[in-house]
Amino acid sequence: MQISDYIRDIQDFPKEGITFKDITPLLGDANAFAKAEEILYTLVPEINIDVVVGIEARGFFFGTLLAKRLNAGFIPVRKPNKLPSEKISQEYALEYGTDILEIHSDAIKSGDKVLLHDDVLATGGTAAAVVALIEKLGGEVVQCNFLIELDFLNGRDKLVGKHVAAAITY
Amino acid sequence: MQISDYIRDIQDFPKEGITFKDITPLLGDANAFAKAEEILYTLVPEINIDVVVGIEARGFFFGTLLAKRLNAGFIPVRKPNKLPSEKISQEYALEYGTDILEIHSDAIKSGDKVLLHDDVLATGGTAAAVVALIEKLGGEVVQCNFLIELDFLNGRDKLVGKHVAAAITY
Repeated sequence: MQISDYIRDIQDFPKEGITFKDITPLLGDANAFAKAEEILYTLVPEINIDVVVGIEARGFFFGTLLAKRLNAGFIPVRKPNKLPSEKISQEYALEYGTDILEIHSDAIKSGDKVLLHDDVLATGGTAAAVVALIEKLGGEVVQCNFLIELDFLNGRDKLVGKHVAAAITY
Repeated sequence: MQISDYIRDIQDFPKEGITFKDITPLLGDANAFAKAEEILYTLVPEINIDVVVGIEARGFFFGTLLAKRLNAGFIPVRKPNKLPSEKISQEYALEYGTDILEIHSDAIKSGDKVLLHDDVLATGGTAAAVVALIEKLGGEVVQCNFLIELDFLNGRDKLVGKHVAAAITY
C-alpha cells in the first residue's frame, strides 16, 4: 500500500485553476493514516526534539502525532485572534495580498530544538513565516517536515539553509 | 502531576466576561501532553471504533492521537469552505447568530462506530451539530469525548442519550 493512493486531486479548489491535494481519505483510513505517521517519523533526524510546531489547521493532524512519538511538546501556530495569551505575529505574502500567523510568546524557550510540521510545502511562504516566528523566540529549526511537497512550486527556495523533508513529492 | 495544572484561565477572551480555558501550556509540555492523551484514551469504551471525528480546530489536537491509539481513521469536521469534496452541512446556534460545520459525505459509512472528540464541552451546541452530521451519514456515536467539560453550562442537556466523558470538569 502506498500512502499516495489515499490522496486525491480536487480540481479548481480553493479556486479555478488550482488542483488541491485532499488528504482526508488518508486520514480516514486507519492503516494509511498509521503508515503516513510512521513515514513522517522516520524522516525526523535523530536529535532530541523539544517541541513540534504545527501550522493551523492541517498541520495539526500529524504535528500532534509527531510530538507524541518524539516525546516532545506541541505548539500550534494559528491564524489571527485565535491564540488567547501574549503572542508575536508574522505577516507573509500570498498570491494576492498578505496573511498573518501567530505564536504564543512563551511557547518556545531560547535554544529549544524545534521540528516544524505542515501538511503541504507549496510556495514556502507559510513555512518561511513560521521559521521566522520560531527564530524570533530563539528556537532552532531542526527540520521543516511535510507530508507533501509540491516540488514544481520551489518552496525550498524560501527555506534555504533549513533541513527540509517530505513524505510524498509531486 | 495534574493535567489541570497546565490549563490556564485567560480573562475576557474571546470577549469581555468570558474566561477562556487555554490548553496550549498542556500541549506544550511533553509529559502533560502525553498524560492527557492517556487519560482521554482510558475514557473510551472498549468497543471497536471505526473512526474518530475531531472538530476544527482544537478538536484536531487529541482527536488524531485518539484515532492512532484506537487504530481508527480520523475525520475532520470543518468550518465552511475548508473541505474540498462533496459534503453535508449543519447549522447551529451561537449566543448571537448561527454558525455552520461541514463533513465530507464519504467520511463515514453507514453503521460505523464513531468517537466524537473536541477540546471543550461548553453549551453543547457544537457537539450536538456534529452528532447530527455523523448520524445523517449513518454513523453511530459511541462516545462524545472531551478534554474539558464546563459543567455549569449544562452541555450534556444537548447530548441526551449519548455517552459523554471528559478528562477535566469545571
